[in-house]
Amino acid sequence: MKTVDKALAVLDQFSLEHTELGLSELARMAGLDKAATRRLLLALARHGFIEQVAQTRKYRLGQGFLRLARIREATVPLARAAQEVTDWLVEQTAETAHVSIPGRMGMTTVAHRMPNRGHVVNVDPAELLPFHATASGLAWLAFSGPQTVEAVLAQPRAKITAATVTSPAELRSMLARFRAQGYAQTRDSFEAGVSSLAMPFFRDAPEPAGTIALALPTGDLTESRRDALLPLLREAVARLQSALTGL
Amino acid sequence: MKTVDKALAVLDQFSLEHTELGLSELARMAGLDKAATRRLLLALARHGFIEQVAQTRKYRLGQGFLRLARIREATVPLARAAQEVTDWLVEQTAETAHVSIPGRMGMTTVAHRMPNRGHVVNVDPAELLPFHATASGLAWLAFSGPQTVEAVLAQPRAKITAATVTSPAELRSMLARFRAQGYAQTRDSFEAGVSSLAMPFFRDAPEPAGTIALALPTGDLTESRRDALLPLLREAVARLQSALTGL
Repeated sequence: MKTVDKALAVLDQFSLEHTELGLSELARMAGLDKAATRRLLLALARHGFIEQVAQTRKYRLGQGFLRLARIREATVPLARAAQEVTDWLVEQTAETAHVSIPGRMGMTTVAHRMPNRGHVVNVDPAELLPFHATASGLAWLAFSGPQTVEAVLAQPRAKITAATVTSPAELRSMLARFRAQGYAQTRDSFEAGVSSLAMPFFRDAPEPAGTIALALPTGDLTESRRDALLPLLREAVARLQSALTGL
Repeated sequence: MKTVDKALAVLDQFSLEHTELGLSELARMAGLDKAATRRLLLALARHGFIEQVAQTRKYRLGQGFLRLARIREATVPLARAAQEVTDWLVEQTAETAHVSIPGRMGMTTVAHRMPNRGHVVNVDPAELLPFHATASGLAWLAFSGPQTVEAVLAQPRAKITAATVTSPAELRSMLARFRAQGYAQTRDSFEAGVSSLAMPFFRDAPEPAGTIALALPTGDLTESRRDALLPLLREAVARLQSALTGL
């Protein structure tokens, strides 16, 4: 089976910095001899995974990857990848988790799950999460561009609980803090007794594609609990981004 | 080297209709025994090209393809793929060829080449090709939706040569004919003495992404010459679409 590993190692040499490689270059980078590398390239070319550039005789990735990437994207679209990472995060943390994406008026939940224990936070997936009152909305906003922030701050804002922040100045300073620390944290701002941690995830644009959040009873969100949860939330973001973009 | 072919044959079993496959299913479809198939799947999984779904134990394509597809798209973007197919078409036909994409006021040429002989049509790549007066523009329009056609027909139209058609009714009937026959043909409508054949190419939307055209001296465009050129133009379209989409 080592041959397959060698063939895939040849593919792994291509990158945005090295889009075309000559035979000797490829062989050296993959740690193979030239004759073996040439045979591997021919096999890969037969299936559309490698092409030889007529003029330069160099090799580049073939169009076969476009077809397989399309199938992969149909196989694991956002909703499914979000559910898988939500399930993983709940298993790791035993807290309620959800993935949400921005709409015009707030964040919409595309995947959620509660842990299998008694005292937990329930998430209503149909409920719109207002940008200013939820960790999800604020995490998304903190990593969005100034135009997006201005457009959201121009909208009317309800004081949903006693803890909901509605002043633009206060919201701006929260966003700056959340951006600097890499996550958003809210306490009781959308529902009394519920606190949340949220981080943005990115797909193919500079603005976040959405957020992953953990929601727990406010009494449980101590400083040490937060410090234990943040690395897992970060790992969930990395897993979702990788599932969606391959990076 | 047969092992690499087998591994790639395993990948080839996945499609939009079969996004997840069990081991026995995969082995049967690829014509391999189960033990060999499992070893190939493990090797592919080590490189991120295959994933096993935790709940069902079935296999699906991995996220590795997203990364490689992105590198491929950076390696052969439209302009480059267009140039390669233009060069190929000129070699096959010994006529001037160009690939053009729609703008707001007409088609813009992204690749062009003249054949290596004396009596040829010159293409100025900076020249905007008005939709109504060129085979490129009309081929693109013929395969676009009614809203696009109406928007273009609502624009003012210059009578560029004696042969330029400007009447909406006449243009509509030309578009219907071009759509039915699969290509657009113009004679002297943009420059006296120059005739063109053009076909649309598609990328990731129902409207054409652009057109591939052959331009030749009007006197050369006999019926039999046209019949000889059309299959080559069709082949050029297939090559460009395949380079851009993998399909």
